[in-house]
Amino acid sequence: MRVGLLTGGGDVPGLNAAIRAVVKRGEGEHGHTIVGFRHGWRGLADGDVMPLTRSHIRNVLPTGGTLLGTARYHPHADDGGLDAVRATLEEERIEALICIGGDGTLHAASKVAESGVRIVAVPKTIDNDVWGTDRSIGFDTAVNIATEAVDRIHTTAESHNRVMIVEVMGRHAGWIATTAGIAGGAELVLAPEEPFDIDRVVRFLQHRHRAHASFSIIVVAEGAVPLEGSSMQYETQLGPFGEIVAGAISERLGAEIADRTGFDTRVTILGHVQRGGTPTPADRILGSRLGVAAIDAVSAGESGVMTALRGDDVVLVPLTDIAGKVKQVPAEMLEVARALA
Amino acid sequence: MRVGLLTGGGDVPGLNAAIRAVVKRGEGEHGHTIVGFRHGWRGLADGDVMPLTRSHIRNVLPTGGTLLGTARYHPHADDGGLDAVRATLEEERIEALICIGGDGTLHAASKVAESGVRIVAVPKTIDNDVWGTDRSIGFDTAVNIATEAVDRIHTTAESHNRVMIVEVMGRHAGWIATTAGIAGGAELVLAPEEPFDIDRVVRFLQHRHRAHASFSIIVVAEGAVPLEGSSMQYETQLGPFGEIVAGAISERLGAEIADRTGFDTRVTILGHVQRGGTPTPADRILGSRLGVAAIDAVSAGESGVMTALRGDDVVLVPLTDIAGKVKQVPAEMLEVARALA
Amino acid sequence: MRVGLLTGGGDVPGLNAAIRAVVKRGEGEHGHTIVGFRHGWRGLADGDVMPLTRSHIRNVLPTGGTLLGTARYHPHADDGGLDAVRATLEEERIEALICIGGDGTLHAASKVAESGVRIVAVPKTIDNDVWGTDRSIGFDTAVNIATEAVDRIHTTAESHNRVMIVEVMGRHAGWIATTAGIAGGAELVLAPEEPFDIDRVVRFLQHRHRAHASFSIIVVAEGAVPLEGSSMQYETQLGPFGEIVAGAISERLGAEIADRTGFDTRVTILGHVQRGGTPTPADRILGSRLGVAAIDAVSAGESGVMTALRGDDVVLVPLTDIAGKVKQVPAEMLEVARALA
Amino acid sequence: MRVGLLTGGGDVPGLNAAIRAVVKRGEGEHGHTIVGFRHGWRGLADGDVMPLTRSHIRNVLPTGGTLLGTARYHPHADDGGLDAVRATLEEERIEALICIGGDGTLHAASKVAESGVRIVAVPKTIDNDVWGTDRSIGFDTAVNIATEAVDRIHTTAESHNRVMIVEVMGRHAGWIATTAGIAGGAELVLAPEEPFDIDRVVRFLQHRHRAHASFSIIVVAEGAVPLEGSSMQYETQLGPFGEIVAGAISERLGAEIADRTGFDTRVTILGHVQRGGTPTPADRILGSRLGVAAIDAVSAGESGVMTALRGDDVVLVPLTDIAGKVKQVPAEMLEVARALA
Repeated sequence: MRVGLLTGGGDVPGLNAAIRAVVKRGEGEHGHTIVGFRHGWRGLADGDVMPLTRSHIRNVLPTGGTLLGTARYHPHADDGGLDAVRATLEEERIEALICIGGDGTLHAASKVAESGVRIVAVPKTIDNDVWGTDRSIGFDTAVNIATEAVDRIHTTAESHNRVMIVEVMGRHAGWIATTAGIAGGAELVLAPEEPFDIDRVVRFLQHRHRAHASFSIIVVAEGAVPLEGSSMQYETQLGPFGEIVAGAISERLGAEIADRTGFDTRVTILGHVQRGGTPTPADRILGSRLGVAAIDAVSAGESGVMTALRGDDVVLVPLTDIAGKVKQVPAEMLEVARALA
Repeated sequence: MRVGLLTGGGDVPGLNAAIRAVVKRGEGEHGHTIVGFRHGWRGLADGDVMPLTRSHIRNVLPTGGTLLGTARYHPHADDGGLDAVRATLEEERIEALICIGGDGTLHAASKVAESGVRIVAVPKTIDNDVWGTDRSIGFDTAVNIATEAVDRIHTTAESHNRVMIVEVMGRHAGWIATTAGIAGGAELVLAPEEPFDIDRVVRFLQHRHRAHASFSIIVVAEGAVPLEGSSMQYETQLGPFGEIVAGAISERLGAEIADRTGFDTRVTILGHVQRGGTPTPADRILGSRLGVAAIDAVSAGESGVMTALRGDDVVLVPLTDIAGKVKQVPAEMLEVARALA
Repeated sequence: MRVGLLTGGGDVPGLNAAIRAVVKRGEGEHGHTIVGFRHGWRGLADGDVMPLTRSHIRNVLPTGGTLLGTARYHPHADDGGLDAVRATLEEERIEALICIGGDGTLHAASKVAESGVRIVAVPKTIDNDVWGTDRSIGFDTAVNIATEAVDRIHTTAESHNRVMIVEVMGRHAGWIATTAGIAGGAELVLAPEEPFDIDRVVRFLQHRHRAHASFSIIVVAEGAVPLEGSSMQYETQLGPFGEIVAGAISERLGAEIADRTGFDTRVTILGHVQRGGTPTPADRILGSRLGVAAIDAVSAGESGVMTALRGDDVVLVPLTDIAGKVKQVPAEMLEVARALA
Repeated sequence: MRVGLLTGGGDVPGLNAAIRAVVKRGEGEHGHTIVGFRHGWRGLADGDVMPLTRSHIRNVLPTGGTLLGTARYHPHADDGGLDAVRATLEEERIEALICIGGDGTLHAASKVAESGVRIVAVPKTIDNDVWGTDRSIGFDTAVNIATEAVDRIHTTAESHNRVMIVEVMGRHAGWIATTAGIAGGAELVLAPEEPFDIDRVVRFLQHRHRAHASFSIIVVAEGAVPLEGSSMQYETQLGPFGEIVAGAISERLGAEIADRTGFDTRVTILGHVQRGGTPTPADRILGSRLGVAAIDAVSAGESGVMTALRGDDVVLVPLTDIAGKVKQVPAEMLEVARALA
């Protein structure tokens, strides 16, 4: 069987572990030929293929990024993308497709599955907001990087009596902000799940600095927004690809806080470092397990499903079940972040 | 309310996060007084108390070990231990007890609960074999340390054409061995779940080194044993506390392999480094969440339960449900380790 | 003898190792009493003292920041600062002073020494540009953090075909930029030592991306400037304390490159994370050695000197020798960065 | 010009950085062809060559080990090794040779140079005991690994009231032991430079545990030995290659201490993990600089020299100057380790 493989959307650590798993298991157990598409859906539409054999995946387990390359393009019916995808699959005699990606890729996979292509998806996103799986590939590494940054900023905040704001990723859900906030002992976590009241933020800081402390750390998700009707005006700023502009909310928040409290306030925007570098063991294991499960699933004739982690187990979830849903941070974790500030 | 707190058994990274959570949440939300017992159950039996307030838990979040100290002692009815425990609780006017520990502590907690003491347990063990929870405190850090060691040994194995054996912890279950094996790309994982056939191990190595490779890495859990009736004789060696003697299985295995294959074979025993040092974010978060859940549970009148992680949620599990059970590595993970070798 | 101790300027990892060394050696070997001044020279001028005994330095070796706190204030003759300093020293019966800091502190120390106070300085700065010592405290940790960031960005640059610009600290010298550039395998290092020609930068990128590569990483020091008379206009932007505004050069450079090449170009500003967190072993050792040398030197009657690392040895350097000098990156290292791009 | 390149002796992190530097600089600046010999001097004697071009060194900068492989063999005149080396060099038309290695390699290089071959050496050894250079490749990474281990063991020692012994490498010099001891805050460092008196060790531990502490960490170099005539008998144990048997001194020392003090005493032997894995930035930079200097030196007609780090500079040192010398830890550093215990 010839099985196609692509990685779509932003790169995250752990993708190469998943690619390696598909190839090793596909060749070794099932005797398949794995065909890679370069630069995600763009390569699938354009017929940009590369062979994927054991020699291509040597030593990639501990590496970040994706050896297939990726792009933010997704195929649509009305721009001829879906037709181009089907044409390539036919030309390359691909009988099944495995696509590793986030929201956009899962949505595209759903559409492609509807057109009769056998397809299995693997969830990756450092935002960890894919519905139906406890974890997506890349999240654990991002949390480690963000926590390390909060740890580092802690010492300098304390030495200089500052309010330090750390902006992390998380557009629709505050997974990185909440976990790095808890792990790093932040005083305040601002997540998209709960629009914040700037007046309460300011009162909290003033109370804290008056009472006993001389510094504070605020971890803010890029997708955090002020409470509607509150005294801070803010419009989410979007970039050319519809992504949130890095630094927009944190710079604005820093200016508000400095202005209203007079405290020395500094902003750090983690940005791209969150999504690169050596994957943590957890991301290598997750990539490996979900990759093996994906190739096993297509070999067993499954289609239109996503491999997912549920507790200690790997399961298959119908793509139609997760469409349009965002997995947000549970209230219990938000409460833990608040309780331990 | 006066709530007692102790940590029992071996120390692991993340204990201080759990202690901090109990104290912060206990004081802040519930208005409790938290009383610490030094050196685990020994201190509870001996009345060795220390106050635990916010000032005692400053800056402990990123630290390893346990600020309460710990010991391997557990109270029994027939040695007067349980009576001593009850006497101390009465004398200190402790209305509820939170104990953080592994198998031994959970068993002791169950016994103490039966005698009418309000008690909630929190699971910790780098072996990750506590039934009823996806993760125990300390496991994630241990996996990170073990994987880093496998990564390091990979480069030296490859440069020198060696068989390298890495022994990790795991008496009844091979969680560290399997996960570090997958994450580190080991050629072979030997876990207690599946007694190994030395003849097959030797044939595998010979085949691999003849075919294409010049080195191999074997990750072996301390509790791994040869298949009964196979050609390798081995008796598990126990130390003074009933613990498995470090290095016993790996030294023996190394000698067998060197003898039977003639390959240059080296052994590394990770030992104590696996259980020390800065906890990973995942262990800090797990400790924080389970700690908050524990103090919330005792405040709500719960008793005889363990706080546990299940998927994205924190739940309570009756101690009677987990007694005598060991959570072993699922077959799917063992298969992933084998498939990706 | 009563010996005063302060840390001045920005905080760096390794300060606590130096403080610990002064206290342990001062108490243990010499029988001195060590008196700490909070928040650097500000505390010395204001008489803000704290005792420093063995109990204050427990467990601080692996911690970042400075337990004494610091501030960017330096005393001057004409603002009454020097008089205030002398008044505090007299009032506290301080016979000798050890001050740990960068340029500003070394300059202030020199002035205080001239007025007859026995004083020994210890160099710290992540910029590593203090004349007379191979290394200053904090530099090695900053290089590790910056290199890790370049490593991380490498994988995402490669996966997405981007030009990635990483801005690091270094106002008058490009030590972090050059070392992190070499260690991270950057394609281009822009350092204050050599003003850059934007036309050559653009030609280099175009040639590289045409020839074979699809991505490039540029490490730029905050103090890098375009060649005078070249086609890029840029004024160094200074903040309220005379510090270079973070992101000024890199944002400007990114815009120029994107504009002139059309390449997808992204900027990451490391900022405060460079100066925080657990010090590397090298910084703990350097802090420990220079701290011991400082207290030994004041005990031996030395004054007006700085402890310094030269090869494998610790030596004393007269403060008058280093005044007004900046240690820049040697031409050989700049050439290595260029040769290995 | 055709330039040969080999790596000899044990592998260390940073070798690939040096190989990469030789190839990039050799091809790019000098237009040389670089010929690699596999498995060190063994490959040079046997004619086991591999081409070394830019494509072979892609992505190797952050990797441990040596892509050329290595072996512990060194050529001698009386076993025909030197003749075989010269024959290979002639057959492959090699005009100059760069060899990266430790004591054995430097000695062999010296012999080969005497026979008229143009040769430049680059020092690597995690022991850091090569005379004439401040640092050898691999040392900084080993110190980082050893310090991390001491940090980890610190927390478990403290939680359990134990004496923990950590054995690190260092046969003739205690560089790793002393630096990791200072950086990790060990209570005692035992190095080959100063044979230890077991009676004083025991008295120190008894005094410390009686006075105030409940745990102690001892870092011991594999080459440490008891003082002659003291009450502890010990013969250094050598393995098949003349190397010190791992664990010999530490197991023996642990037994003595447990026996004489009754303290719970545990031993950890770091072993192979010290020499593997991702090199620190310092080792990547050192490898890069010494590699560039080596290819520049052979291109300039130099021979019989070693590239070396002296302060901030890279210099050339005649091989005849360093023969038979061991660079030991300066007394000042040993004193710092003692003073800060």
